[in-house]
Amino acid sequence: MCASPAFPSPGPKAELEEGTVLTPRFGSDGLVTCVTTDAETGELLMVAHMNAEALARTLETGEAWYWSRSRGELWHKGATSGQVQTVVEMRVDCDQDALWLKVRVAGDGGCCHTGRRSCFYRRVAVQDGKAVLRHG
Amino acid sequence: MCASPAFPSPGPKAELEEGTVLTPRFGSDGLVTCVTTDAETGELLMVAHMNAEALARTLETGEAWYWSRSRGELWHKGATSGQVQTVVEMRVDCDQDALWLKVRVAGDGGCCHTGRRSCFYRRVAVQDGKAVLRHG
Repeated sequence: MCASPAFPSPGPKAELEEGTVLTPRFGSDGLVTCVTTDAETGELLMVAHMNAEALARTLETGEAWYWSRSRGELWHKGATSGQVQTVVEMRVDCDQDALWLKVRVAGDGGCCHTGRRSCFYRRVAVQDGKAVLRHG
Repeated sequence: MCASPAFPSPGPKAELEEGTVLTPRFGSDGLVTCVTTDAETGELLMVAHMNAEALARTLETGEAWYWSRSRGELWHKGATSGQVQTVVEMRVDCDQDALWLKVRVAGDGGCCHTGRRSCFYRRVAVQDGKAVLRHG
């Protein structure tokens, strides 16, 4: 892995929340949460994580890079599947510990490793006091 | 805090991804990520976290409960602000470590503690090779 690129350290609350400098609040695991939606439909596609390197590469290339927690490696989304995500817009939340990517998906337009377009293909319902999942 | 309610333990990958039982994969901190969007407009409102108790109360009451990491306590969203979130739909992702709530917001319709409707009120732009934030 490359040396981690430097983002400025988070400042006081007022700067963090109202400022114009990106100062991501990486957790103790070095990651921020990233929510990725389809830029056209608004559909929630996936929730993933970025370390500083993934965030820097996403900003540099305009394509989504994540940190794969399961594989423990930098992950250029779509590098093998063709499902490259071109970033149309990136937003950050109030306390700068979460990012929102609006993307256009290349290849077959899929996102989930199960083959679905979105990772959120099951609805949670309550039935007889128990939480059950319904596909679709 | 009440005793943590039991959700079944995650099973093998096939059950986790294709099954019909909610078996949340809480992290080592006991939390899953929760993405909350406006049920009507689809706008991303906030990213927060739930422990088992918050998830159980959300399922029981139909209103969003989170775990506040900053305050270290269970958080009934809107209990003090009036910005209660009624859950219209809950979805779960492939590996069951992230939830998606589609909500209707009561009170003044706001969500962010800064007073905005959404926590994602700044766009990340690249200017002269540096990441800057633009409001709006």
